[in-house]
Amino acid sequence: MLIRSEFAIEFQLPCDVAMVAMLRLHPSLDRLVRQPEVLGAEHIDRETGNHRHLNIEEYTDRFGNRCSRFVAPQGGLRLAGSSVTEHAGVPDPIETNAIQHQIEDLPHATLEYLLASRYCQVDALSLVAGDLFSHTTPGWARAIYIRDWVHDHIRFDYKTARPTKTALDVFTERVGVCRDFQHLAITFSRAMNIPARYVTGYLGDIRRPYSSAGDFSAWYEVFLDNRWWTMDARHNDSRMGRILMATGRDATDVAITTSFGQADLTNFYVESYEIDTEGKTVPLPGGGVRDKPWMREAGQRG
Amino acid sequence: MLIRSEFAIEFQLPCDVAMVAMLRLHPSLDRLVRQPEVLGAEHIDRETGNHRHLNIEEYTDRFGNRCSRFVAPQGGLRLAGSSVTEHAGVPDPIETNAIQHQIEDLPHATLEYLLASRYCQVDALSLVAGDLFSHTTPGWARAIYIRDWVHDHIRFDYKTARPTKTALDVFTERVGVCRDFQHLAITFSRAMNIPARYVTGYLGDIRRPYSSAGDFSAWYEVFLDNRWWTMDARHNDSRMGRILMATGRDATDVAITTSFGQADLTNFYVESYEIDTEGKTVPLPGGGVRDKPWMREAGQRG
Amino acid sequence: MLIRSEFAIEFQLPCDVAMVAMLRLHPSLDRLVRQPEVLGAEHIDRETGNHRHLNIEEYTDRFGNRCSRFVAPQGGLRLAGSSVTEHAGVPDPIETNAIQHQIEDLPHATLEYLLASRYCQVDALSLVAGDLFSHTTPGWARAIYIRDWVHDHIRFDYKTARPTKTALDVFTERVGVCRDFQHLAITFSRAMNIPARYVTGYLGDIRRPYSSAGDFSAWYEVFLDNRWWTMDARHNDSRMGRILMATGRDATDVAITTSFGQADLTNFYVESYEIDTEGKTVPLPGGGVRDKPWMREAGQRG
Amino acid sequence: MLIRSEFAIEFQLPCDVAMVAMLRLHPSLDRLVRQPEVLGAEHIDRETGNHRHLNIEEYTDRFGNRCSRFVAPQGGLRLAGSSVTEHAGVPDPIETNAIQHQIEDLPHATLEYLLASRYCQVDALSLVAGDLFSHTTPGWARAIYIRDWVHDHIRFDYKTARPTKTALDVFTERVGVCRDFQHLAITFSRAMNIPARYVTGYLGDIRRPYSSAGDFSAWYEVFLDNRWWTMDARHNDSRMGRILMATGRDATDVAITTSFGQADLTNFYVESYEIDTEGKTVPLPGGGVRDKPWMREAGQRG
Repeated sequence: MLIRSEFAIEFQLPCDVAMVAMLRLHPSLDRLVRQPEVLGAEHIDRETGNHRHLNIEEYTDRFGNRCSRFVAPQGGLRLAGSSVTEHAGVPDPIETNAIQHQIEDLPHATLEYLLASRYCQVDALSLVAGDLFSHTTPGWARAIYIRDWVHDHIRFDYKTARPTKTALDVFTERVGVCRDFQHLAITFSRAMNIPARYVTGYLGDIRRPYSSAGDFSAWYEVFLDNRWWTMDARHNDSRMGRILMATGRDATDVAITTSFGQADLTNFYVESYEIDTEGKTVPLPGGGVRDKPWMREAGQRG
Repeated sequence: MLIRSEFAIEFQLPCDVAMVAMLRLHPSLDRLVRQPEVLGAEHIDRETGNHRHLNIEEYTDRFGNRCSRFVAPQGGLRLAGSSVTEHAGVPDPIETNAIQHQIEDLPHATLEYLLASRYCQVDALSLVAGDLFSHTTPGWARAIYIRDWVHDHIRFDYKTARPTKTALDVFTERVGVCRDFQHLAITFSRAMNIPARYVTGYLGDIRRPYSSAGDFSAWYEVFLDNRWWTMDARHNDSRMGRILMATGRDATDVAITTSFGQADLTNFYVESYEIDTEGKTVPLPGGGVRDKPWMREAGQRG
Repeated sequence: MLIRSEFAIEFQLPCDVAMVAMLRLHPSLDRLVRQPEVLGAEHIDRETGNHRHLNIEEYTDRFGNRCSRFVAPQGGLRLAGSSVTEHAGVPDPIETNAIQHQIEDLPHATLEYLLASRYCQVDALSLVAGDLFSHTTPGWARAIYIRDWVHDHIRFDYKTARPTKTALDVFTERVGVCRDFQHLAITFSRAMNIPARYVTGYLGDIRRPYSSAGDFSAWYEVFLDNRWWTMDARHNDSRMGRILMATGRDATDVAITTSFGQADLTNFYVESYEIDTEGKTVPLPGGGVRDKPWMREAGQRG
Repeated sequence: MLIRSEFAIEFQLPCDVAMVAMLRLHPSLDRLVRQPEVLGAEHIDRETGNHRHLNIEEYTDRFGNRCSRFVAPQGGLRLAGSSVTEHAGVPDPIETNAIQHQIEDLPHATLEYLLASRYCQVDALSLVAGDLFSHTTPGWARAIYIRDWVHDHIRFDYKTARPTKTALDVFTERVGVCRDFQHLAITFSRAMNIPARYVTGYLGDIRRPYSSAGDFSAWYEVFLDNRWWTMDARHNDSRMGRILMATGRDATDVAITTSFGQADLTNFYVESYEIDTEGKTVPLPGGGVRDKPWMREAGQRG
């Protein structure tokens, strides 16, 4: 299955701003990329409407993610990119027999995913986690129980997003956006000694009825039985077509854009969808029509 | 100058516990080590008094720190180690002309030290930092101003330590222990676009009058003018004889010991002091006598 | 000057709900009321559209506010009321010579307005307040300085409202709605030993150009020179035509409605405006036309 | 049964300080007082050792508690008092059939004890409370279940006291002192629609073996079946000999002393014990000897 993922984001900058973007595909997908991935940053002169390409410097962070640095001048900024990836066409794997490792058997590199981080206060929630989850069977069953508990107890509401919201806030307020669900599930998983990391990527409507305008998505991974497994506490059904961009300890590490100065989001478009070998969009089941507002109003992010 | 650093810590464990310790010297000191560094972990049988060596596995974490993993059986646990390091015998460097880099000029690897972390909520304190520090001159002067502000506004009190205390708590409560001072200064530095990282190590009374029984110490580093500089918001005078153990984003990353299970500290000894070439302790100025309670009561940690 | 104040609020209730409303005028206005004050609660049968009056029980709380209790059945709920009040027609009084009392000279009944409350963590912000305000002159100058500091440092944004937001959150996030401004100013005032209490009431566009659709408003009062003075950290100019409803320690004590069960706001209308002796609306200066959407969409509250 | 309650507290004041003390018996005990209650405040001149009586002004706060105001000059301050009260000699009443009122049936004056307060964030913990307690039977059984849950999940530790610790902190940290237990139980009770208020008073070893040096104590009351019932989440057995001093929404309202300026506690003695009709101390069962350190070191308060 081929999946095209694309986005365009526009900002208005009152001053020159240095930025780091994490909008590239993850290096682990390199062997699956079927068309050269594109990422561009353009300065928009609001008076003339002229666009000018900005120089982007790329580097890999300590987590292995591709990062893009640039300085955007005062005025408009447009970031856009696209990729075509080969995808196995199977839903998120399920392995009910996956074992939970004893701490001493975990690979070194997974240990940091047991620690607390900015949004995931494992220390503060470890005793709560014990109350809720210590009766469950270690391994896959426990990981799923945590994911489902979060899914069932947290209500989704775009309007409740805020940048300082922690897992503890999510636990008490019981409402949040995509990343909030994952932060709480990550925190509980770590508290129960399951390494868990935060993931950003694309998750479009692939071989399922159209749901809504696209967005970047967040999910998480847990380490069981010697590998990382995809988990999603917001959509706790098994989805197809996740395209990985970055992984880290929590949303701090893998923000789509980190701006060192004011940058006001003005337009926002993200889609990820199946194409055929000629590049045509594969229709969705149910006859849903994909709405394509190339530039929709900013601020509706999950 | 030669510095001997040594410690012994004892725990009582009600069950078997997996542990990660960060009690080795930092790899950057390798060329200065003058005697083989020693680190041992022993199980103590409380009935027979027998000691048995535990197997330690070593690895390097993503920050470049040496970590030691082991499983300690139920009963007593004793961790002990020592090292002798050549030290230049000069106090913490001062460079009043050190410039602050524009964000776009910072090395890639320093960028993560501008982000928020578990104890350093840069997001929550960035506007407060702006109020307090935006009038200062970028560079060395700003870094020092932040360090001194923290030193002058926070009161030291061992009894106020708690594992969940964040920089925001320190800012409002105005009291804390060593690590709390550094967390607040790190947060403010990052908010003002100065990369800052947390450091653990030894800081004994070296060529200065005896102050008190030793402990592991925490300080921090800021990145200015293409290198990291030592800062210490608790002791804001220029000290001699810091022996680096580990660096990270905050105390989460470089805990002396992380126990996956209950481990009650029962005894604690740490000292770091100058020795001569024959290995004898160099007397301190002022005739202060170093108190050497090889095993003092646990719980008095800064 | 005569001021008519009126409101209508509608809720949808999935189950029967007990409610307490604080929607009456404050008893201190009794001698100024020129038409009998009206308050009604009606059950709306969504199928038939029939309205049925609900029985309201009134009582006075410990702060001297009029409270209205009732049980609303599952279905629609409409609360509506109106009043006409004589108003002196002068703006909020200013007394630059008003002294600040020594603690020992404060009346007994004002002392509780120095203490911490749910949203006003005086304990947590007292040292911050000292940094910011101890250089000011006690009395009117200090009270005004605090009010203006809050006004100048906090940005208004309807979308940032949340029911758990405290003065400390407002101080760090620097954004909020009407009540958030007052909570921070109240907290700082108390920390500087000025008794301060939270107020709800009407504040329409009176003898000033039309600004926007009305809402209930919040402001606060400080005790100086033997009386309470009106302060408003959101609108820090001197306004005319405030109509007092209730006072308390913070928004907890004087919520417009407290529902013991789910109650979803569906429609909302509030206005307060000058009328002439024949009951006709006095036009606003600047020719602004008052928009009168008797039922506008709920959720836009300040 | 006759109970003598007595205390002596000493402070050192670097400057003159205004204080409010709530160290008198509650007015509801007036008919049971058998010897004139005594309360004195003395200034101690540290150089001469002279004591001088300070003038105390008394008033009753809005909760009906007796408050004592005075200004203490720089130097030493000694507060001391005693009382003898007739007590029925029965333990805390138990009424397993006590019903929980519907909100609409609660007396007006109890409604404020359902609201959030400084330390009892009912709003933040209401959904957590629903998870934990909605399966219980309303009324006495629910009230007891909440009390016992707190007792069983929170560990007592003097060293963890801090003045800003809220019910939410207690819930996550699972450790605290006397008042912390009560704050969490009060918050959960309110969240489950049971009015709950905080109480301070004496609770000595009466007709039970000696436990430890005395202190002022905190407990709480819930409103069921038309009256307030004593609950104690720290000591969840039925105790005898509670002597009521003050009630309020939480510890903010009924602090033993509120100092408007620095006041360092230096000595502290509290005891409450049974006497016979001749005024002699009744021996405790088990032959325990009451230790009587009239002035013990400050800082050990529960």
